Amino acid sequence: MKPDRVYLDWAAATPLSENALTAMMPYLSGQFGNPSAIHIEGQATRNAVEEGRQTIATAVQVRPEFVTFTSGGTEGNNLAIFGVVESLAQAGRAYESMSVITTKIEHPSVGEACVALRRRGVQVRYVQVTEAGKVDLEHLRTLLDESVVLFSTALINSEIGIIQPAHAIRKILKSAEEQFETEIFFHLDAAQAPLWVNCQFDSLSADFVTLDAAKCCGPKGVGVLIRSRRTNIVPVVHGGGQESGLRPGTENVAGIVGAAVAVKEAQDGYQERAESVSAIRDQAIKHMQAELPQAVINGATGDDRVANNINLSISGLDTEFAAVVLDKHGFAVSTKSACSGAGGGASTVVLETTQDPARASSTLRITLGPDTTLNQLQSLTTVLKQHVEQMSQY
Amino acid sequence: MKPDRVYLDWAAATPLSENALTAMMPYLSGQFGNPSAIHIEGQATRNAVEEGRQTIATAVQVRPEFVTFTSGGTEGNNLAIFGVVESLAQAGRAYESMSVITTKIEHPSVGEACVALRRRGVQVRYVQVTEAGKVDLEHLRTLLDESVVLFSTALINSEIGIIQPAHAIRKILKSAEEQFETEIFFHLDAAQAPLWVNCQFDSLSADFVTLDAAKCCGPKGVGVLIRSRRTNIVPVVHGGGQESGLRPGTENVAGIVGAAVAVKEAQDGYQERAESVSAIRDQAIKHMQAELPQAVINGATGDDRVANNINLSISGLDTEFAAVVLDKHGFAVSTKSACSGAGGGASTVVLETTQDPARASSTLRITLGPDTTLNQLQSLTTVLKQHVEQMSQY
Repeated sequence: MKPDRVYLDWAAATPLSENALTAMMPYLSGQFGNPSAIHIEGQATRNAVEEGRQTIATAVQVRPEFVTFTSGGTEGNNLAIFGVVESLAQAGRAYESMSVITTKIEHPSVGEACVALRRRGVQVRYVQVTEAGKVDLEHLRTLLDESVVLFSTALINSEIGIIQPAHAIRKILKSAEEQFETEIFFHLDAAQAPLWVNCQFDSLSADFVTLDAAKCCGPKGVGVLIRSRRTNIVPVVHGGGQESGLRPGTENVAGIVGAAVAVKEAQDGYQERAESVSAIRDQAIKHMQAELPQAVINGATGDDRVANNINLSISGLDTEFAAVVLDKHGFAVSTKSACSGAGGGASTVVLETTQDPARASSTLRITLGPDTTLNQLQSLTTVLKQHVEQMSQY
Repeated sequence: MKPDRVYLDWAAATPLSENALTAMMPYLSGQFGNPSAIHIEGQATRNAVEEGRQTIATAVQVRPEFVTFTSGGTEGNNLAIFGVVESLAQAGRAYESMSVITTKIEHPSVGEACVALRRRGVQVRYVQVTEAGKVDLEHLRTLLDESVVLFSTALINSEIGIIQPAHAIRKILKSAEEQFETEIFFHLDAAQAPLWVNCQFDSLSADFVTLDAAKCCGPKGVGVLIRSRRTNIVPVVHGGGQESGLRPGTENVAGIVGAAVAVKEAQDGYQERAESVSAIRDQAIKHMQAELPQAVINGATGDDRVANNINLSISGLDTEFAAVVLDKHGFAVSTKSACSGAGGGASTVVLETTQDPARASSTLRITLGPDTTLNQLQSLTTVLKQHVEQMSQY
């Protein structure tokens, strides 16, 4: 990336950690054996995959057999969601007797997976969220009954940065499990989490946690699904017995090695990183609100918001165009999540949380990195303000 | 890999091409943008992905919109197989009214996908294969009726190297299409093909062709599904709209770039490569048969066999142990396909083709690379012969 660029789209993609790349290089050159092969070339890559698994397991404090590598966050989310439902279906439970609960502000890899479940006959229930994007716990309670097998949400929303109260959600699910004598699995899409919050598995209170290496300075094309001891899932993609039968196909050895280093590094420093970046974010938001009083912040304030997320709306402004203008001035930002289609359309997340179409179609998402400075964000604000003033003259 | 090693497991894994790695490096360092992002970092990686698609499209002579990147051959096979059936199911056709035809010697990514289809109610019919592994065309003809929607097989069997008569298969399918006024899609798993045979799409006569970068000197974790104009499939994994809605999740940019270079290089030189390697293979087989008269070659001879495959059985021999002994002497070979589980068990491919359990449980698969020499294979034969003689003393 050119030195004059200010990259503020960390929720969409992150630079590959130098240590991750260094760790990957042997597996992109001499060490190419198939990890399932019995010869020493195969043993070398098998060891690399299992060391990667152990590194992740240590970082999130689980046993390595509960760590499954996938081709990314999307596949990880699909594996958890379909894995639960299909495992029950294969055991004889009718799709029509199952419900899953999610929100209407999920990433498409959760939202579309639930839509696909509905086509199979599963009932999908949507729990309300507050204007900040937080799961409405009281409403959640009312949705629970003996049909519910899964609750799935993002730990951190990729657009507005809300951090869900995982522990409180778990408590409600657990109480319903006791009441109905059922199992209700809890899935957290934690793709946006490792750089900024604690991902120790127990602290998240979930049965499934999805990570995406590409969102925490690892390589693209590698995800991780971590699951609890009581889970029992079946694969989404069918083939060989790799990854304990849960994810077939020759392992992406280099990618796995890089992902492990990235997740470890992300978790090693998350606390200081989050503290320093959230301080800058808060000052930047204050500055923006002073300079652009028409800007409204989407999402929560304070500790409920991931450290690196700013999401604002300027009703009436064509923010796609604003993002292009900012890009020309050296600032890489987005309007919403890349997987929701970068080009055009309102943010379904902001529409759902605010019920305000003008606000939903004028979002700018600015996601900071560990080295983002207040000065850079002030410069961005200046350019944005100029642009807003120019636009208001038409 | 150490210089004294002789790597003879090219069907399981291949070294990454230096040109592929060079092409990948920018996307493992500075160029990390999300290809769906609108800023210049995103445009740079979007261009890289689309150039990769164009390179593959040119190599196999299709239009780029018919090239879909996946996370590997396994996912590519699943996408073709489930894609056809689920697309029809979503259009209202009952699973129970559909049949797919395959063989019993497929890679698990085809075989297990078909088993999963059966769980959904689809009828799976198995066409007989000859002792060489070739699809029995007369039997195929008898299996076709108005319920058949798909025929799926490997262009080249990963264990015994048989090359299927794709054109003749297509003719039979076409004639059934005319007779029953239906569409019967033809899927070829061509993972083992690019280094050794022509993969121009039209010459393969198929509707779907799966490639796997890792099997032709590209990176692990990238596959390609090429499809014909008349196909209409739905995704297996659900999420964002990437890859024209067929394969969600942030694109593995570096992997895609490397895969494109590898497929192009593989196809550029396949003819000379196949000629020189098959000559060495034939001499090596002759030598082995002279030195080890008890060895039986599995699969076809001559042009029906992929250039780099030797598969032999020595009935009564523990070939898992033989592979370990060969490994200690510097030779990396396998007993069967890595995805079928390296450890233990007979080869289902050889059992199905020969109906001989002793032969199926004593296979050795030796797959050559472009630089394998006759001398290396003669040395391997010497070690193997010594080992067989030692074993016979017990």
